[in-house]
Amino acid sequence: MKVTTMKCMKCGKEFPVSLDRYVCDVCGIEGILDIIYDYKSIEISKEEIAQNRDYSLWRYKKMLPLEESAPVPPLQVGWTPLYRASKIEDQLGLNNVYVKDDGRNPTASLKDRASAVGVAKAIEAGAKTICAASTGNAASSLAGFAASAGIKTVIFVPKRAPKAKVAQLLVYGAKTVIVDDSYDRAFELSVEITEKFGFYNRNCAYNPYLVEGKKTVAFEIWEQLGFDVPDRVYVSIGDGCITSGVYKGFYDLMQLGLTEKMPRIIGVQASGCNPIEVAMKTGEFTPQEGNTIADSIAVGVPRNRLKALKSLKESNGDCISVTDDEIRSALLELPRGTGVFGEPAGVTAFAGFKKHALAKDIDSEEKVVIINTGNGLKDIDSAISVCTMPTPVASDVEAVAAHVKTLV
Amino acid sequence: MKVTTMKCMKCGKEFPVSLDRYVCDVCGIEGILDIIYDYKSIEISKEEIAQNRDYSLWRYKKMLPLEESAPVPPLQVGWTPLYRASKIEDQLGLNNVYVKDDGRNPTASLKDRASAVGVAKAIEAGAKTICAASTGNAASSLAGFAASAGIKTVIFVPKRAPKAKVAQLLVYGAKTVIVDDSYDRAFELSVEITEKFGFYNRNCAYNPYLVEGKKTVAFEIWEQLGFDVPDRVYVSIGDGCITSGVYKGFYDLMQLGLTEKMPRIIGVQASGCNPIEVAMKTGEFTPQEGNTIADSIAVGVPRNRLKALKSLKESNGDCISVTDDEIRSALLELPRGTGVFGEPAGVTAFAGFKKHALAKDIDSEEKVVIINTGNGLKDIDSAISVCTMPTPVASDVEAVAAHVKTLV
Repeated sequence: MKVTTMKCMKCGKEFPVSLDRYVCDVCGIEGILDIIYDYKSIEISKEEIAQNRDYSLWRYKKMLPLEESAPVPPLQVGWTPLYRASKIEDQLGLNNVYVKDDGRNPTASLKDRASAVGVAKAIEAGAKTICAASTGNAASSLAGFAASAGIKTVIFVPKRAPKAKVAQLLVYGAKTVIVDDSYDRAFELSVEITEKFGFYNRNCAYNPYLVEGKKTVAFEIWEQLGFDVPDRVYVSIGDGCITSGVYKGFYDLMQLGLTEKMPRIIGVQASGCNPIEVAMKTGEFTPQEGNTIADSIAVGVPRNRLKALKSLKESNGDCISVTDDEIRSALLELPRGTGVFGEPAGVTAFAGFKKHALAKDIDSEEKVVIINTGNGLKDIDSAISVCTMPTPVASDVEAVAAHVKTLV
Repeated sequence: MKVTTMKCMKCGKEFPVSLDRYVCDVCGIEGILDIIYDYKSIEISKEEIAQNRDYSLWRYKKMLPLEESAPVPPLQVGWTPLYRASKIEDQLGLNNVYVKDDGRNPTASLKDRASAVGVAKAIEAGAKTICAASTGNAASSLAGFAASAGIKTVIFVPKRAPKAKVAQLLVYGAKTVIVDDSYDRAFELSVEITEKFGFYNRNCAYNPYLVEGKKTVAFEIWEQLGFDVPDRVYVSIGDGCITSGVYKGFYDLMQLGLTEKMPRIIGVQASGCNPIEVAMKTGEFTPQEGNTIADSIAVGVPRNRLKALKSLKESNGDCISVTDDEIRSALLELPRGTGVFGEPAGVTAFAGFKKHALAKDIDSEEKVVIINTGNGLKDIDSAISVCTMPTPVASDVEAVAAHVKTLV
């Protein structure tokens, strides 16, 4: 078996592989587990990967905690485009900038990678109902994947989750509980209810298999760069699961002998909610209130902070923050520069990259990948808030021509 | 040269291939041109296509009106998933039902296929500004592709275009003119302004190259079914361009000797705006007011009606309509049954398919493909309108547990 144990991130205790163990029995909810592999048992080569015609994250099934024959949900997920950002390079005097657009996943966010593996594990466990808490994206993602696989879902969202994200999960038929409180409290309740009702838990900062799905974004970046690891990866941080997934992906590649390099992982938070940045700088974690336009990363108590901080430190990375005004600017700059339309939390990584670039913190030859974690259509209200809606023009050719002259 | 002439759909007059001719000089705006190929000059085989590693619509570049070396805009477009709809099959007693999810394109609608080819032709023409009118999707699509290619856009939208769609094109930096009138008038104005200012025109029901982009959806359906043509294709109809593209794609495959079969193309309109259905039944076209929840197909004067009607007739197809209530039901049934979340115009095709299935109009063994033309995130207000937003629950474990009991 390629997965050998599940190891507590906090105390290091190892547990036998099990589908119904989520956290360490000593450390409780803070003792998130890491899936440990016997890498020697996984035989894989670049040639084998290059020849695989399955252009989805399942092309890496050998490197995932699933048997070759394990059934998976039907939605096409992963293998999202990696674009060279030439216009952005020109604007900032850089030569190797790429954008990975994970807003192209089936429910339009990177969370689909986690849901794909989470629902596959739920199928393996014979689960009838999956439960999760989410600021929005993980919820709609789970709802979509569960619908495609015919499994019920109970989802907890905080009161501040945007209506659009709630609608997306209702559309998929998820049983939705809007908790009159913060995301952090919705998370706690989802864990309690999961235990009470015997549901399968898909919380990424709880179920250790979820990060395993997210790590595929690193595999793809590596393969799409021609089996090359970039110098830096910029990614926004909420709970810290995506950061952990990015690290785990490159870590796996190193352990499997497929690369010798780990990129510097630069986490980007909103300055209105930056507990990971503070913890990186001070060594101490302090809970915060989430206050930012980037609702998906408005996480004051990042559940996966231990994994995330380890990922940033061991990759020689960093955590920075950007203001909501910088996020608002990025909401326009990314699509205008690349054709990629991201949601606020998605373009936060771009805002952080730009901050570094303007501060001349990036060498012009460094190979940089910026991950857009969610589609801009997920939060159209924020997009509307940064645009000036044009005033309607009378439908008369002279009036219109005069108006067009002012535009071009 | 593989393209030989451009032929008027109305009077049959042929014109030399030209980048700045859009319509017939005899028939005017109603004389939409069709791109005519010398099929013998195109050498292509299933084996060659199967071996192509470019999983985008450019894998069919040989079958498009572009030279092999022609530059194309960078956004990854096409090769959207074709899903087997097993749950839907079970519900309706059918055995071969598939959903083609074109909401997975870069700006989340099938229009991206047209924009990809349109912008490639604009690059070929050396155009600096592209102009178009749109009910929304074609506009945001053009805006996204033009942004990625560094070309300016001037876009005309009618007053009733949803704010979310307008925001999407503003985000991409398009110069946007909201015309205080209908789509039909916005279309006319875009044509007049194009001429006045010497812009490149990307209107699908005007620029004959656009349908050529849309035809790739037929190529993909054929290839993804294992180089097999389905018995029926359901597609919603607004201007009639997608219908025309689907027909042209299968027509090309027949002319190239790659298949001998044309599927029955079943157009689906909203009963509040069904001029093509009326024209099919009565032989006469009467302009209508567009009145339906499915704004993308609220087209009372379908510009490409001649091509669309020809496509329906020559494929032994039909045109039917569904009520807004049926469209609202489909907004929930499609995602719950397949994991595919479509916008109202997108799920209209599904509603039409279901109407036929319930009327036992489809043989259980027929191979049916339903095209979802746009992502549900494009029009979240419509999604919200069919969902019941849950009342927030107090963040107390007993209260939440009692509530969850009522849900599962």
